[in-house]
Amino acid sequence: MKKIKAAVVGYGNIGRYVVETLEVSPDFEIAGIIRRNGAENCPDELKGYKVAKDIKDLGQVDVAILCTPTRSVEKYAVPILEMGINTVDSFDIHTGVLELRKNLGEVARRHNAVSVISAGWDPGSDSVVRTLLEAIAPKGITYTNFGPGMSMGHTVAVKAIDGVKAALSMTIPTGTGVHRRMVYVEIEDGHDFETVAKAIKSDPYFVNDETHVTKVDDVDKLIDMGHGVNLVRKGVSGKTQNQLFEFDMKINNPALTAQVLVCAARASFRQKSGCYTLIEIPVVDLLPGDREDYIAHLV
Amino acid sequence: MKKIKAAVVGYGNIGRYVVETLEVSPDFEIAGIIRRNGAENCPDELKGYKVAKDIKDLGQVDVAILCTPTRSVEKYAVPILEMGINTVDSFDIHTGVLELRKNLGEVARRHNAVSVISAGWDPGSDSVVRTLLEAIAPKGITYTNFGPGMSMGHTVAVKAIDGVKAALSMTIPTGTGVHRRMVYVEIEDGHDFETVAKAIKSDPYFVNDETHVTKVDDVDKLIDMGHGVNLVRKGVSGKTQNQLFEFDMKINNPALTAQVLVCAARASFRQKSGCYTLIEIPVVDLLPGDREDYIAHLV
Repeated sequence: MKKIKAAVVGYGNIGRYVVETLEVSPDFEIAGIIRRNGAENCPDELKGYKVAKDIKDLGQVDVAILCTPTRSVEKYAVPILEMGINTVDSFDIHTGVLELRKNLGEVARRHNAVSVISAGWDPGSDSVVRTLLEAIAPKGITYTNFGPGMSMGHTVAVKAIDGVKAALSMTIPTGTGVHRRMVYVEIEDGHDFETVAKAIKSDPYFVNDETHVTKVDDVDKLIDMGHGVNLVRKGVSGKTQNQLFEFDMKINNPALTAQVLVCAARASFRQKSGCYTLIEIPVVDLLPGDREDYIAHLV
Repeated sequence: MKKIKAAVVGYGNIGRYVVETLEVSPDFEIAGIIRRNGAENCPDELKGYKVAKDIKDLGQVDVAILCTPTRSVEKYAVPILEMGINTVDSFDIHTGVLELRKNLGEVARRHNAVSVISAGWDPGSDSVVRTLLEAIAPKGITYTNFGPGMSMGHTVAVKAIDGVKAALSMTIPTGTGVHRRMVYVEIEDGHDFETVAKAIKSDPYFVNDETHVTKVDDVDKLIDMGHGVNLVRKGVSGKTQNQLFEFDMKINNPALTAQVLVCAARASFRQKSGCYTLIEIPVVDLLPGDREDYIAHLV
């Protein structure tokens, strides 16, 4: 079997887990890793791989798995698609998905490539469950409850506040899609905790949520990459009320994102050129090997 | 918008709910209902519809929703596909899915039609969840726990036993895919309960399961169409252990089957000719209207 040659673009938290996932995926080989600093100060675990600043230096690449910040996905994806290389990403700004799909779709179709976007867990695998439940109970309300787990976006927002030395913002689900924010901060010398706490609570990221700010000595001791989702739908199938559905997961956050990205990379070779979200791709395409095996065992 | 003209083939429990579901689906109209007895003794709720013995008597039909016994699906589907009409069914013999897909696929491709098979809830919507979870945590075990709910197959098996006047077999989940059978029977005059109970417990349907048989005066008073699933996977994403997933539902059984069938009927018009299970169809295709609306709201 010819293996899919994947480049990992960006080697932060997600990139690390993508490399691990590719190492245990039977149908992939790692074409190389793209880092800002190239092979300079390259971590030990990458010693066996090509590490470069530019994807052009990697030789043949079939798909690029973008592990870059969400806001730079388009910037990285466009030139790669223009080389006729498929891309996948875990772009996570829900309100920006449609525009990204349009923009990358045009480039992909022009260059006979495929881009799969927003292929993490939310958006991503959760979106598949949400869509399925909306279909099988078309009237009703779905609540997506996140956590307990670290919110990257909120943590970054706290870190930007004057007087904050280190921070962690935890998302705590309180049901019906409402979340509490538990914020843990180290305070810089000469700054007042109460002032910092007030600034956090009035920040746009927090102003609409119940937010608790706690001063700690060492944020790092609190950090755990576990996360969770509890997705609930109560709805109507046909004319029948009170159909109850629940999807629940407790997961390592970057590990699941990485696994979904690799599944999407695989699925990209089974789609016509263009740009897709996960809800537009048959779930069986996420799996390696032969369709009929899965139909026999999973249907 | 041109509506999809659907024929409902068979008017038992599922057929009734399919009619209800079509009545509230914005993109469908009912071309008619096929009953063994045609319009003879037609129930009141069908008075506004064409009711016939033969689908050829209904005028234009775009898709036939088969609500016939599972073992007659192929027999009914083949001549309909040969007329170039799409078919959907909720064929539920897991071990027979692959062969049915092959047989109906050949007919469908020859006649430029689409067949979507095993489109109930299990197999069906559960299969989509199972496949998704297998993709995002490729190592691990999935347990599908059914119930509490009535098992049609087991109930029929009990009814066939000598001395049984009426019966109900309930499936009770005890975890890790193991089920208890709670069987309620009315005994025919002149028969011995203990003998009947022994016969039930040694029937192939029951011999491998923990089975309890209870004598009751009126089985009908116990019957409720509620059912449930608890689908659990603990697995590995990449190299990361202990990823925990759970899908849970408590539903009206025939109502959910009917809704999934109608979703599959809709999706059939978005596939190339051939035969598909639900895991081979993008979930967004199950929904009416515009893809981009769902991408904006559900991804």
